[in-house]
Formats: sequence, C-alpha cells, structure tokens
Amino acid sequence: LVYPGAHHTRFHHALGAMHLMDSALRVLIDKGVEISKEEFSSAKSAILLHDIGHGPFSHALENFFFEGPGHEAVSKELIHRLNLEFDGKLTMAEQMFNNTYPRPFFHQLVSGQLDVDRLDYLKRDSFFTGVEEGNVNSERIIKLLNVDEDQLVVEEKGIYSIEKFLVARRLMYLQVYYHKTVIASEFQLIKTLERARHLSKMGENIFGTDSLIYFLKNRPKLDKGIDDEVLETFIRLDDADVMSAINQWNFSAEKVLKLLSNKIINRKLNKIIFLKKSLDPNRIIELENEVAQRFDIEQKDASYFIYSDILNINSYPKDSGLIKLKLKSEEILPLSSVSSLLHDNSLHITESKNYISYPVELNRFEI
Amino acid sequence: LVYPGAHHTRFHHALGAMHLMDSALRVLIDKGVEISKEEFSSAKSAILLHDIGHGPFSHALENFFFEGPGHEAVSKELIHRLNLEFDGKLTMAEQMFNNTYPRPFFHQLVSGQLDVDRLDYLKRDSFFTGVEEGNVNSERIIKLLNVDEDQLVVEEKGIYSIEKFLVARRLMYLQVYYHKTVIASEFQLIKTLERARHLSKMGENIFGTDSLIYFLKNRPKLDKGIDDEVLETFIRLDDADVMSAINQWNFSAEKVLKLLSNKIINRKLNKIIFLKKSLDPNRIIELENEVAQRFDIEQKDASYFIYSDILNINSYPKDSGLIKLKLKSEEILPLSSVSSLLHDNSLHITESKNYISYPVELNRFEI
Amino acid sequence: LVYPGAHHTRFHHALGAMHLMDSALRVLIDKGVEISKEEFSSAKSAILLHDIGHGPFSHALENFFFEGPGHEAVSKELIHRLNLEFDGKLTMAEQMFNNTYPRPFFHQLVSGQLDVDRLDYLKRDSFFTGVEEGNVNSERIIKLLNVDEDQLVVEEKGIYSIEKFLVARRLMYLQVYYHKTVIASEFQLIKTLERARHLSKMGENIFGTDSLIYFLKNRPKLDKGIDDEVLETFIRLDDADVMSAINQWNFSAEKVLKLLSNKIINRKLNKIIFLKKSLDPNRIIELENEVAQRFDIEQKDASYFIYSDILNINSYPKDSGLIKLKLKSEEILPLSSVSSLLHDNSLHITESKNYISYPVELNRFEI
Amino acid sequence: LVYPGAHHTRFHHALGAMHLMDSALRVLIDKGVEISKEEFSSAKSAILLHDIGHGPFSHALENFFFEGPGHEAVSKELIHRLNLEFDGKLTMAEQMFNNTYPRPFFHQLVSGQLDVDRLDYLKRDSFFTGVEEGNVNSERIIKLLNVDEDQLVVEEKGIYSIEKFLVARRLMYLQVYYHKTVIASEFQLIKTLERARHLSKMGENIFGTDSLIYFLKNRPKLDKGIDDEVLETFIRLDDADVMSAINQWNFSAEKVLKLLSNKIINRKLNKIIFLKKSLDPNRIIELENEVAQRFDIEQKDASYFIYSDILNINSYPKDSGLIKLKLKSEEILPLSSVSSLLHDNSLHITESKNYISYPVELNRFEI
Repeated sequence: LVYPGAHHTRFHHALGAMHLMDSALRVLIDKGVEISKEEFSSAKSAILLHDIGHGPFSHALENFFFEGPGHEAVSKELIHRLNLEFDGKLTMAEQMFNNTYPRPFFHQLVSGQLDVDRLDYLKRDSFFTGVEEGNVNSERIIKLLNVDEDQLVVEEKGIYSIEKFLVARRLMYLQVYYHKTVIASEFQLIKTLERARHLSKMGENIFGTDSLIYFLKNRPKLDKGIDDEVLETFIRLDDADVMSAINQWNFSAEKVLKLLSNKIINRKLNKIIFLKKSLDPNRIIELENEVAQRFDIEQKDASYFIYSDILNINSYPKDSGLIKLKLKSEEILPLSSVSSLLHDNSLHITESKNYISYPVELNRFEI
Repeated sequence: LVYPGAHHTRFHHALGAMHLMDSALRVLIDKGVEISKEEFSSAKSAILLHDIGHGPFSHALENFFFEGPGHEAVSKELIHRLNLEFDGKLTMAEQMFNNTYPRPFFHQLVSGQLDVDRLDYLKRDSFFTGVEEGNVNSERIIKLLNVDEDQLVVEEKGIYSIEKFLVARRLMYLQVYYHKTVIASEFQLIKTLERARHLSKMGENIFGTDSLIYFLKNRPKLDKGIDDEVLETFIRLDDADVMSAINQWNFSAEKVLKLLSNKIINRKLNKIIFLKKSLDPNRIIELENEVAQRFDIEQKDASYFIYSDILNINSYPKDSGLIKLKLKSEEILPLSSVSSLLHDNSLHITESKNYISYPVELNRFEI
Repeated sequence: LVYPGAHHTRFHHALGAMHLMDSALRVLIDKGVEISKEEFSSAKSAILLHDIGHGPFSHALENFFFEGPGHEAVSKELIHRLNLEFDGKLTMAEQMFNNTYPRPFFHQLVSGQLDVDRLDYLKRDSFFTGVEEGNVNSERIIKLLNVDEDQLVVEEKGIYSIEKFLVARRLMYLQVYYHKTVIASEFQLIKTLERARHLSKMGENIFGTDSLIYFLKNRPKLDKGIDDEVLETFIRLDDADVMSAINQWNFSAEKVLKLLSNKIINRKLNKIIFLKKSLDPNRIIELENEVAQRFDIEQKDASYFIYSDILNINSYPKDSGLIKLKLKSEEILPLSSVSSLLHDNSLHITESKNYISYPVELNRFEI
Repeated sequence: LVYPGAHHTRFHHALGAMHLMDSALRVLIDKGVEISKEEFSSAKSAILLHDIGHGPFSHALENFFFEGPGHEAVSKELIHRLNLEFDGKLTMAEQMFNNTYPRPFFHQLVSGQLDVDRLDYLKRDSFFTGVEEGNVNSERIIKLLNVDEDQLVVEEKGIYSIEKFLVARRLMYLQVYYHKTVIASEFQLIKTLERARHLSKMGENIFGTDSLIYFLKNRPKLDKGIDDEVLETFIRLDDADVMSAINQWNFSAEKVLKLLSNKIINRKLNKIIFLKKSLDPNRIIELENEVAQRFDIEQKDASYFIYSDILNINSYPKDSGLIKLKLKSEEILPLSSVSSLLHDNSLHITESKNYISYPVELNRFEI
C-alpha cells in the first residue's frame, strides 16, 4: 500500500536466506572453520524453516490470532513436528533454531545481529521498495564473517561495511517498516478483524472459511504449548482467507464491519500524526464523538476508527546481542568500541513517538 | 508455480505500460508529430485502463466466468461507465481503446504489434521470471517509433531491434507463457472450479463469497452487452475469493472437489506430454479408467483429472497487423520484406501441438 | 568514439572469459563429464592467455604491424615461451589452445562457435555500449552445455537461447563492431601510421618510442615463426606508444602527418556511405583531386583521406564449425536442422557492402 | 591497480554530472524556484567544464606539474578563454563556476557539500569499483533538494538519505580514494617523474613528447595567472604522454629511472604501513641505507623508493560549507543539529595517519 513494487513474499525470503546461509558456511569453511556435512545441511534447514510459523499478514495479525508471543512458538512447534515426520533428520536443525546446539555461531547465523535473515530481508526489501539507501552489501559482509571460539565475529576490515549496514537498517526501519501508512493500514486491518470477532462472539453469523471463523471465536495463548486443533487450524490459514472475508464483509449488513472493510477495499486509509506528547484523554473523547457523528455510529464503536499509541523504534537493540569485531591483533571487541562513527551508541537508543491514527475523512487541523 | 520470482501483478503492468506510453508520446512529439494535450492524457488513460476487465486469474479463468469473449468486453464496458462517471472526460480515451478515434496510431500504441502493452509485459515478465533472453529493449524501440499518415511505423535503423524483439517474444511464449507446468496448473484450476459449479448446480451448498457463488451458478454470455448485476458482481471478485474457496474445499466432504483442491494446495500438478498426433479415443478411455481406479472415483469424473487437447502457439499472428518500417527513402514496407533474417515469415507460422495432461500419480510410460 | 561508455579493456575480457570457463567446466563436471584437475586448470590458463598476442588497438592495427596473420601467431608464440618459463606447466594449456589436445571440447570452449570468449565479449560489449539487444544469457547457455564423445554440444531445451544468441551476435556485428564510425576511425588510425611509416622510410626523423619506430621501419611476416627481436619489441608496445606519438605528430612540420594526426585528436572523423555498387575509378580520381585541393596537398597523398573498399560481414560463418544440439533422443544434430527459426541458414550468409570513406569536410552529396 | 573494473574516465564523469545538473534544475523548477533558460544552460555548461583543468593522472600529478594549486586555476583560465572564443556566451557559466553569480545555489550545485559533482562521482566510483557500500542514491537526494533565499537546502524528510550519503562518502574515502595501494602507486608515479625531471635538469636527454619535456624543465606557479605557453603546452598533455615515456624509460641507461619505470610497468608497487607515531629520522636513514644496498644505488637516491608522510582524511570538512536542512516548520538548520545519528560531528573530524611507503622487496618486519 506504500511501495507498490514491494510485492515479494516470505517464501522468496526463506529461499534467499537459505542461499545466503550456504554462502556464509562456505566462506567459514574456506577460512578453516570445521563444519560437518550434517551441520552444513542442518543450518540450511534451520534458516529455511525459521519463519514457518508466520500466519496471514505476519506481524500485523500475530497478536490478533494469539494472546502473547506467536510466530516463534508456532515455528518452534512446526519444526519439532517436521522433525518427527522426518524421523529425526531435523534434530540438529531444531537445536540450532532453539539455540541449544553447542556451537552458538550456527544460531547466531539464524538469529542474531548479523544473521542471514536480516542480510536477506534488508537487501530484498530495499530492492523491491526502491529505497536504495537501505541496500546492504550482504555478499561482502558474508565474506568478512569469521568464527572465534564458536562465536560469530566480523573481521576488522569489515568495520565500514558494518557501520553502513547499521545505518541502512535504521533507515529501513524509519522509511519502510514504520512508514506512517504502514502503521495506519495495519491498525485498520486489526480493527476490522476485531469487529468481526466481536460480532461473532455476540452470536452473529460471520462469513469466513472455517479456519478463520475458528480464530474469530478463539485467541489461544501459546505459553503452555500448542494443541493439535489450534496448530492444524492455524496452518490452513493464508492471506486469501482474510482478504476474501473482507471482500464479503464489504457488503455486510452490519454497519461498522461494512465501513471498516470498505475502507480497506477502497484504500481509505487512516492518517497518522506524530505528537510531541501523549494526547489529553478528554481530547480523545471529543475526537471519538466527532468520528461517531461523521460515520453515524455509536460512540463506543469510534475507537475502531481513531486510536492513539506510542511507537518504539530501535533498529539495533542492545539485548539481542552485539556485533563483535575481530581485530588484526586477534582481539575481539564490540563494534561500538572500535567504530569512530558509532562510538557513542547513538544507534542503540530507542526512539519513542506518540501518535494518533485518525480517519482520512477528519480534517487534520482539528486534531 | 514455475518461476517463483514472477510474483508481479497486473497493477504493476498497468502503471508500467502507462509510463511507456508517456515516453512514446514524448518521442513522437519530439519528432514533430502533433499531439494535443487531450490526446496525450487520453492515450495514457486508455493504456492505464486497457486491462481493467480482467478477473481473477485472468486468461486462465476468463472462459470459466463467461461464455465467449470476456475481458475485452468487460474492459470496454467499464471504461464506458467510468467515462459516464467522469462526465465524458474519458471520451477520447474510450475512442482510442475502441479504435474509433480518427488517428489510428493511438489505438496501435494501446493494442497492436508494437503496442506499449507488449513492450511492458515482455520486459517485466522477462525480469521477474529471470528468463533473460526474453528481455526487450523497450526504451530503444520506443525511440525508433514514428508516425506516417497517422499509422505507427518503425524507423529503418530499428530493424535489428525489432528482429530481436520478435525472437524474444517467441521465446517467451515457448518458455514462459506456454510452459508445460503453466498449462497443467491452469487446467487444474479450471477443473476444480468446474467441479464446484457442477455441485452447485446439483443443489449442493458450496462455500464461497457471494460473488464467487454467483459465477458458479451463472456463466453469462457478453455478446449482447453486460447487465448491471453481472458487471457489479464480477468486479467484486479477486484472486482471494477463488483461493480461499479452494482452501475451504480442501476439507470438503465431496471427494472429487476435495481431491482437486488438495492437488492445488499441495502442488500435486499434472504432467504434460506433447504427442506426435492426437491420442486414440480408446486409449483415453483406458486412461480415464485407470485414473478412476487410482483415485477411487467414478469413471465419468475422471476427465477432471486427465485431459487431451491441442495447443496453438503464434507469437506474431498476421491478422493482428504487421510491423511496418519506414525506410530512409520514406517508403513504408512490412518488416518481413526488409529483414534478411525474417524474410521467410517463419515467425508468422502457428505451431500446433497435441498434448495430454495427466495426474502426476500416473506413470509417464503408461501414457 | 561511438559508445563513450565502452571503455573496457581486453584485460577485463580475459578475466571474464576465465570466470566463464570455470563455470562451464563445473557445469560439465556436474553432468558427469570427467575432467581432471590438470585439465581444469589448463583450460582456465588457455582462455586467460588466448588474447595475449594482441597489440595496440588490436584488430585495427594488426595488419599494420605484421604482414599476414598476426595476433594468433604472437599468442601462440607467447604461450609457448611462457610454458618454457613455467617449466612445462602450461603444456596442456598450450595443446588446448593449439587444438592438439586429444579431447576437442576444451579447444571448442576456448575457440569455437560457442566458446566462452564470445560468451564473455558479447555480454560485456553489450553492457558497456548500452546496446541491450546484444545481451547474451551466458549463464544459461553455459548451464545447457554438454559433451558428447568429447565434442561440445548444447542440450535440446537450449534451442531458443541459442537462437537468441545468434540473433544477438548478428545485431552486435551490425550495430557495434561494424558501426560506420568504427570503420571510419580505424581507417584514419591506420592511414596516420602509414604516413609515419612512409616518412620514416624516406629517412625523416619521426617521433616515437623505440618500439614504435621499430615497427614503422619493419613490418615482419610471421609465417616462418617470430624472431626474438620482433617479439620482444612487440610486447613493449601499448596504446600509449601510439597515442603519444599522434599527440606529438599533431605538431609535426610535415603537412600530411600533421593533418592526419589532427583529425584524430580533434575527432574530425571520416564519413562512410554504403554504395549499391563499387565506385567508378574515374569518380575516385575526381574525388581525390577535390580532397587534394581542399587540404592543399599533393594528389598522390589524397588516398590517405579518401578510400573505397568492400565490407564483408558474417557473424556465423559455416567454416568455423556449427553449433550442435543434443536431442532428448540422444541424437546430435546441427542447430539449423532443428531450429524452425533458423532452418534456412539465413544467419550463415555473408553480407558484402561497398563503401566509400571520405573526409567530413567534403559535402556528402558530392560523392 | 586496485579495482580493475574502475576504468572509467573524467569524460564519463563530466557527462554524468551534467546529466544530474539537468535533473536537479528540473526538480527545483517543479518546486517553484525561478530559473531562466540562460541560468539553466549556464549551470549545465559550468558543471560540464568544472574539471576541464585536470591534467594527466589528475590529483596525483597536479603538484608535479605546478607549484601550488593547479587544476582549479587551469579550469578557471580555460573557461575564461572558452568564453572569449564563444563571444561571451559562457559569461554566466563562468560566474557560477567562480561563485560570483548573485544566486549562490548555482555555485553550490557545481561545488559544495551536496554538489552534483560528488553525487556523480561517488555513485560512479562505487559502481565501477564494485564497492557497493559507497553507492549513493543520487536520484533521491536530487529530488529532495530545494532552494531557500537562493541557498541550496535539503528537505527535512531527506535526513536519512543524507546521513547515508555522508556515511557512504566516508567509506569511499577510506576504502577507495585512500586505499594503501592507491597511495603507494601515486607515490611511485610522482617519484619516477621527479627522477626524470632531475636528470633533465642535469642536462641529460630524456625521452618524451615536447609537452612532457616542457614540464620536466618547468614547474610553473599559477598564482599570478597562467601564461599562454604554459596553458597551451599543458592542454596538449594526456596520460599517454606520461605512460609512453615510462614505457621507454623502462629501457633507459640511467639506473634509477629505469628501476622506477620498471616497477610501474611490472606492477612492483610499494607497500604502506600505518604507524602509531612518526618514524624516528635515524630509522629512516637506516632504511634508506638498506634500500640503497638492495638496489645497488647511491644513498641519496634511496628516497625515490622509501618515504614517510602523514595522510589527512576528512570526507566532510567543515570549511567547505555545511549541509542545511529545511524543516517542515520552514526553519533552516545545519544537518548536525537535526540528525540523531550525526549530532556529535564525528564526521567532521580529520583523521591523521602516519605511514611509511617502502619497496615490496623489503621485508615488512624490518620496518
């Protein structure tokens, strides 16, 4: 809805990440790191499967389908079941994915500050959006990887490439992943489905595939494992289940659901304004009133259309591990103590922004 | 299903073709062709809208939704209604689309042997499939266009570029558009929907959005115009309506529909063999028997799974007009009388191939 | 002088061709062709060195420096001497280059209708000139190579790629390698050096590096081998020897040499007209008279500036071997008996064109 | 000598920069900046000519040919003379180049922190070296330019693109322009020419074109203008004059000149080591002794081969102006007060590095 060229899929990404894993492992082998045939193919299986738990519309709907963490738990469970199906041939891949394999660099390549996941999606998203500044020289970064005591490190001469990788990543977060129109449309998608769930729970007969209806009626919590019914229903779902339902709801008799669906189908997306501070609750009530009047709906339903929240952006969070450089002197140091550009940790800071999302039919200056 | 990278859309194509129309018109203006502002924007509107009548899965399902010609009639009608909606601002665009505008080169740019439609889709499909040989130098061909007595011509020095364009187009037909897996999977999609229609007509309750169900129950003929209900229902449909239905039918109680849907969802695509001559009808009956046994279905339903037909391929049909060259001597000649490579019209010949499409579960050598 | 972007060098080409040889050999090994380590590295050495005998301005000046065939003889001799210098480590490479190695496909990869030489230079020249239509899908063609009884063949499914390769090659010949401005400027370079040679032989003191002066005074014939002095002098020469001499001759006291050099330095390139038949000798004399008057030089020197000849173009000569296809039936056939596009051998025909090259200062219509 | 693909020329750069100037001016006009036809073509002429004063090997030899600043003075004088030759048609271009035109943004586009010169060469050098990280999104930066009170500014939403531009520029300085092999080979070229000059001044007869010999005998100072003889001789020179002389000197009777030339022809390039502090003068004398012995030359000539200096790198010097952002609030602020990434001015800091350049024949660990 923002970059029309960005029509690539998670399947492309999985293949691409597997391809980069292959390159990375060959580079490490050439540098003398011992990697067995089984480790080689397990690392490739682990990355091929790393995103297998994503459902329709991925991160946007993850919290709608599940209470609490979602796709990692599903990925973990699916890899576990695939391993059973393949008679244990995926045991090592499963360990690498779960970070229980004794040599940590394999997990770090699957999921870490310099994993092949990021190296693929940043380059791919930059290419298909046309946001050239987000391009990442994945090939060169991979050539500069090394392993020191089973930990992933980058060789010293890669420092400028890594600096540029982090700057590019920050830019992709700010210009693509957290683009205002992205935030607004994800919000509208969620609200539409929440309305359908609300109606479904009120006993109304809502159109949808059986699997979608199941998740309107249920929002499982995955902290104690995933039961068979939940898993099997979830993997039947894809984007088409959601989109066809919205196509149909667009002609629903229920006013709020019809209006929400119509806004998605006809691209009447909400607007976002970033605010210096959080909005006064009274002002929100006023705005909700206005929305209710404008759309001729009840006040209590206005929050489907107008909404205020805080956005937290950190493209290089400290807690997911630091990038480590291996100097020519063999010393291992975190990037930030070597880079003259990034020495002050400015990239680690979380930027928090208050915003309000409101219907395009409202006048901006009334906010 | 063949080239996973080829995930681009008709919307991308419409924007790209409009962009090329813009370039082509600027080139013609620079060469002294008089083009008014209204003609300029009308030609761009005409190409932007030229494919607007395509439904879900486009050519593959066109014949399923309608009896007889489909998308052109719908495009024509939609452009007509848009023109009414825009108070006649699209009148000239409509004429260009319908070839009733007095200066034929505008229509030829929208739909002809060297239209910007082809210049866009060949380049785009070549790029996204990765079939580099199909790449077409659209930019240069456009620079070599000219107009002579309101007819589109190519300047003499473009002859080698045009030769290469025709060879590239032929290759795209043979390697992409008529790829065996493409033929096989289109066939399976159609058969699945035909089964659903059959059941629906038998009075069974089939899952689907209202608009999809409408087209299971009806297969309108468009030769006498399109009635409002047909048109309004058709434009509500998109790929998600079809795919979500197949997702659901995959768990249908009806054996044939369930099996057909399952084969699509799980990529059990038919195989295609090209045959020297058409298959003996008795042999087909034998094969249908075998299929019926294999899938434990009735013999009369075997033709949903095995099927024989003729494929006609002509990437440069004579009847859609010839490419004309304007020589330095000002003479206008058809390409084939100038090109030493294509003088024998080998590119005009229609290649016809008998083939049989059969379930992957059958052994090839049994055919 | 025609495509300013085409500033790439023979060194780039040698590296690129070696890279493609590496790919081609890996493809063949993957298909089960047995290739020893020594054969592998010898084939790479052979292609790396295949053009080593080229002198300044390559084909353009080959005939100026030597009487009769030039660069192949020099390449052959240099590879021979390198082999001596490397204690016979290049023996197999030398055999492959000279086509005396028992398995012919190695030589065919170095020099044949589908050698990696062409696969590199066509792609490279297409890229740097910007003549996109000449682009060749080298990667795919290489993937389709195979070996049958030690002869190089192409697999049947590669037929369209090969058709397109031949059409692209023809286009590069016509639009790049035999571009009129290329023909004209090569002619002027040769004539300038011929004038310098003439003056040098008349005893005048001509500026130039010792190695250039040597070749003004000598034009060795290589049919009986190359003597040490010739070879050692020749390899000292590069483009800078020629260009710096022309820079200096541009200020020469000798009128004809100064004028010829000046035309090169200041890009006053001759024009070329293709003629239906060869020019009447009397007309040539008239034109020479006119040139002599225009430049105030003697009539006998006019042929340095105006010149008539025949150009023969054949991008797929029969005598350098045919491309052979290996059908799925295991049968080996020449491309022309399989391709429906090229069945009439139109690509084998030599096109001959009479032309006259004349100074830009003359009026075209006077020719 | 470092990135073999980087074989592009200053001519390519001049055309490219003119192309970007064209784009930039069209963007500004679209934003409502008034630019007359004469200003438009003058700005394009100014950038087309901005590097016209560069001699052979550009920056590397600038100080060899002239005492004090070189190419700007020559460019300025050549533009002045071209203006006379073109009857004053370049007067406005000359003013823009010299920053005497009343609207400063034209000069800033020719020469400033965000001029089209840099936007072209960074992108071009990144492409041809293959150092992808140095790629700059010139097209987008140009789209974000604006003019405020005749000063060039960047629109606020361009902040991340500019951050990335500065990071990319720094990387190109560190990985390309100041690559050790670049420093080493420029040094050897200069030393070779200095030896030739020394011998020429001692009365020896040195080979070279007249124009090269002139600059061996003279090293003009340009602070009081350029006299005709200097200018006319300088513009006759190109790289071929230098390279052909070195080709010939490689066979010189004079030992030092022959050795220096030979090292260039045969790519025996010096090595560079960066040092924590400057080298002890006594240690340098020891090393010179060693070099003299190794090459059997006089001690006083050893400094042609071994050399110690300081390298100062600043890719964003404060004194050539700051990049200014125009906020949505219309406020104009320097980039560093807005960017959370670059707020600490780390990009402005000059990095100084001591280094020694020594012959490859010496053992590194002896330094």
